[in-house]
Amino acid sequence: MLYNNLMTFVYVPPTLTVDGVILKLIDDQLQVLLVQRADEPFKGKWALPGGYNAQGSTTTEALDRALATKTGIDLKKIDLLEQLYTFDTVARDPRGHAVSVTYMGLVTKAAPKVSKTTQNPQFFPVDQLLALAYDHNHIIEYAHERLQSKITYTNAVYALLPTKFTLTHLQKAYEAILGHELDKRNFRKKFQELDLITATNEQFREGAHRPAKLYKFNKQSLEFLSRSFD
Amino acid sequence: MLYNNLMTFVYVPPTLTVDGVILKLIDDQLQVLLVQRADEPFKGKWALPGGYNAQGSTTTEALDRALATKTGIDLKKIDLLEQLYTFDTVARDPRGHAVSVTYMGLVTKAAPKVSKTTQNPQFFPVDQLLALAYDHNHIIEYAHERLQSKITYTNAVYALLPTKFTLTHLQKAYEAILGHELDKRNFRKKFQELDLITATNEQFREGAHRPAKLYKFNKQSLEFLSRSFD
Repeated sequence: MLYNNLMTFVYVPPTLTVDGVILKLIDDQLQVLLVQRADEPFKGKWALPGGYNAQGSTTTEALDRALATKTGIDLKKIDLLEQLYTFDTVARDPRGHAVSVTYMGLVTKAAPKVSKTTQNPQFFPVDQLLALAYDHNHIIEYAHERLQSKITYTNAVYALLPTKFTLTHLQKAYEAILGHELDKRNFRKKFQELDLITATNEQFREGAHRPAKLYKFNKQSLEFLSRSFD
Repeated sequence: MLYNNLMTFVYVPPTLTVDGVILKLIDDQLQVLLVQRADEPFKGKWALPGGYNAQGSTTTEALDRALATKTGIDLKKIDLLEQLYTFDTVARDPRGHAVSVTYMGLVTKAAPKVSKTTQNPQFFPVDQLLALAYDHNHIIEYAHERLQSKITYTNAVYALLPTKFTLTHLQKAYEAILGHELDKRNFRKKFQELDLITATNEQFREGAHRPAKLYKFNKQSLEFLSRSFD
C-alpha cells in the first residue's frame, strides 16, 4: 500500500503478464514450446513464451503479440486455445509482483520460426525439462494435468492429431499425454463406443506394415464425452 | 502505450480486481451472493462482492479481504473454492481497463452478515437476476455453466448439500443447478452406480411424509466420476 503526499490511498496494481503453454505431439511425445531468455532475470534460461499485458490490451491480444515476436507462431494457427489459470504468488518474479494469466494451446501444424528477432523457439518433451525460468515448470505441470483430465472427459485430443489418423496414432497420443501404456483391445473398444470418430475410405501405409484404416473426428471442436475415458 | 520524458517505454498495467461468485442452494434454488454498490460507478446497483488487488496481495488474499469487508463471509467457511476465469475486456469497467480474476465458491452454511460496514449482502436466485453492475451477469452465467458441467463429471454437489441428505435433496440440488427436472428412477439408479454416497443409519422425517433414509458423500473433497452424469 502506498500513500501520496496528501496521505490518501494510492492503488498500485501488480504487473500483469501473459504466458502460453503451447503443446504439440512430436515423435510420440508431448512437447512444449520454450524460448531462451535474452535478458535478465534468468538470462539464457528457457521459459514459456510470454510478455507484459499493458493497459488497453486483452490477455489474448498480449499473448498474440508475445507469440508472434518471440516464437513466430500466429495465435490463429493454434487448433485449440483456452485460458488455463492465473498465477499470482508474490515471489514468482524476482523483479516484483507479477500476476500471469496463462493459456494452453494445442497445435498440430503450427511450427516456430527461428529468426533474428525470435528467441530460439523450440519444442521440448514435457517429461524431461530442466529447471526453467520463474515458476514455469509448475505452470507446465498444471497444463499437463489439465490436459490429462481434459482428454478423459472431452474429445480435446483432436487438436493434437492430424485430420486423418489411424487407431494406433490415436492410442499413442493418449499414451503420450497420460504417460503410461494402454491395453490395445480395451482402448479401441472404449473409444469406438464414444462415437466420436468415423472411418474414412483411406488407408495409411508405412514401411512393411499392413495398411491401417484412417479415421477422422466427427467434430473439430470441443465436445464432452458421455463417459469418462481412462 | 505511454512514453516518459526520455521517450523510453513506460509499462502501465491494467487495474487488477477480484470478484467472487458465491453460490448456495436456498429454497431449492441456486442462489448467488450480491452486494449493493455504495459508490459510483453503478451506485445502488447489485454486484458480485469484489475489490482491488494491490501489488503484494495474491488474488485469494484480495478476495478474502473483499468478502470479509463487504459481506461478512469468511473465505475459510467456503466449502469448495476454485478459480473460475480471468475477465479482461477493456470496456468492462467505465473507469478504465480493469482485469478481474474471478473465483467460484460453493457454500452450505456460510451466511452473509448484515452490518454497518457490509454492503447489504443478500443471496438472489441466479435465474431471476436484473441487470447487475459491470459484466457481472455474464460472469454469473459463466459460473453457472461451469457448475452445470462440474456436477456432471465430479462430485462437486457435495459442497452445496448438508453433510447428511436424502436422495430427494440430492435430486433437487441437481435439478436446481441443471435447470430442469430429472426422472426419479433414472436419477437414483445412475447415482447409486457411481458409488459416491453411502447410506447412514439415520432417517429424515418431515411432516406427514414417510421417513427417508439419510445419505452422506464418501469424500468431502473433489473427485472425478467414472461416467458423466446427465
